[in-house]
Amino acid sequence: MKVVVAEKCGFCHGVRNAITIAEKVLAQEKDVYSLGPIIHNPDVVKRLAEAGLKTVDRVEEVQSGTVIIRSHGAAPEQIAKLQDKGIHIVDATCVLVKRVQQIAKHLAGDGYRVVIIGDENHPEVQAVMGCATDVAVVGDESDLQNLAKNDRLGVVCQTTQSPEHLRKMLASICSHGFSELKVINTLCKEAVKRQESAVRLCKQVDIMFVLGGVQSANTRKLAELCREVNKQTYHLENWKGLDKNLVLGKNVAGVTAGASTPDWIITEFVKNLEAFDDREG
Amino acid sequence: MKVVVAEKCGFCHGVRNAITIAEKVLAQEKDVYSLGPIIHNPDVVKRLAEAGLKTVDRVEEVQSGTVIIRSHGAAPEQIAKLQDKGIHIVDATCVLVKRVQQIAKHLAGDGYRVVIIGDENHPEVQAVMGCATDVAVVGDESDLQNLAKNDRLGVVCQTTQSPEHLRKMLASICSHGFSELKVINTLCKEAVKRQESAVRLCKQVDIMFVLGGVQSANTRKLAELCREVNKQTYHLENWKGLDKNLVLGKNVAGVTAGASTPDWIITEFVKNLEAFDDREG
Repeated sequence: MKVVVAEKCGFCHGVRNAITIAEKVLAQEKDVYSLGPIIHNPDVVKRLAEAGLKTVDRVEEVQSGTVIIRSHGAAPEQIAKLQDKGIHIVDATCVLVKRVQQIAKHLAGDGYRVVIIGDENHPEVQAVMGCATDVAVVGDESDLQNLAKNDRLGVVCQTTQSPEHLRKMLASICSHGFSELKVINTLCKEAVKRQESAVRLCKQVDIMFVLGGVQSANTRKLAELCREVNKQTYHLENWKGLDKNLVLGKNVAGVTAGASTPDWIITEFVKNLEAFDDREG
Repeated sequence: MKVVVAEKCGFCHGVRNAITIAEKVLAQEKDVYSLGPIIHNPDVVKRLAEAGLKTVDRVEEVQSGTVIIRSHGAAPEQIAKLQDKGIHIVDATCVLVKRVQQIAKHLAGDGYRVVIIGDENHPEVQAVMGCATDVAVVGDESDLQNLAKNDRLGVVCQTTQSPEHLRKMLASICSHGFSELKVINTLCKEAVKRQESAVRLCKQVDIMFVLGGVQSANTRKLAELCREVNKQTYHLENWKGLDKNLVLGKNVAGVTAGASTPDWIITEFVKNLEAFDDREG
């Protein structure tokens, strides 16, 4: 079948950087840990695990060696605990995520109640939450009840949200009320470009595939946005995850991929899909 | 007919203060000017004119004596010109309007492009415009084209706008794009209470009257909000302006009044309307 790949998709600078750092550290040192999966892609995490990277959930699990701070960052409290233990820390936090952390800290320092528009279960958001004391995470309108109507609000956004969601949530915050509102647009421009590119493509195809880890926030956002435009949108980790019945009778497929999806997964998927013959299905 | 007066209406603190100041100055001094109508109510302006207050449009028209800065304020440039002439200045600017001016000045000092949500022809907005160099006045969505999509925007609002309009415009600004957005809620809480009270009342009556000067921004906003809920809404200056045919066949009338409408205009209107008999109409 005919397969069209989105103009912008796959590895972003932050993810590429985290992987390069991990490979470099693994080549030089033994006893290397990542605090949580280094990026949200099981295939890449598996490959790095085979090269020796041990993924742990909690600081308490590490007694010695080197800890890589993953692309999503870590809370200052976690980093302090590692430092107290004398553990070697290598920071692979995405620069844009680092920026959100610093902005949250400054906003809190200036007396704002910090509001993060994002998913409170996502590690990026949890790390930002750790950078300020008075923080509210706002996932949707129902979370606004936690904000006083006369608060001085300092708002940042999880980097992988969409401009449309940011706009919608800010409009709701404005409706809810505030005395002062300071918003720093912390959306990742690369993520936004990928979203735009994916939405453009999915309008032109019979079926749309979004490749990436199921935990990957930016991949999930891509799938969510595409699904609003094209109901035939499927979020898969890789070629193995494809139910071949889905493509039966379809002529043109679109493919995009999250910022943590490596090129080889995209290439493999596209090659196999192009070669796919209905009669085999 | 039955007449119900809105719980909150008529003179606000800023207007009352401006009139008290004018009366005091007129009792003590000759040659007293107001730079523009001291408040937006022709009846009050007429009464003060009879007591000696001369209303001028431009600083250039005053050569000596005392100038009262009206409730809507004046631009720093105008005040400087008066000072240069050695003219005695008495400031009757509403404290909330003064606050908008100071905030605009601070925002500009902090490098923000100042955005005023309001009517560019209104003296309050024009005075605020004079407090910063890089200012955009945004009346509706079409004015957003003057803003760059990556600006650092410092937003204030004309005090007499409605929360709903502020919310709508902020949502549009968010859609338009920005790198940083700082919004100070400069709405007058008294004006908002009057709006809420008027809208509540106009839902319960057959016909709604909004009393106040046709130039009065807060009165016009009251009329606009009531008209959205009750098409039978009429903005009048006083009893003389009423077309009696409007009330024929109506049972209950609601009355509200702008912040610059004196009590005697409201009382006269209500008394006459209560006494009004369809047979006279």
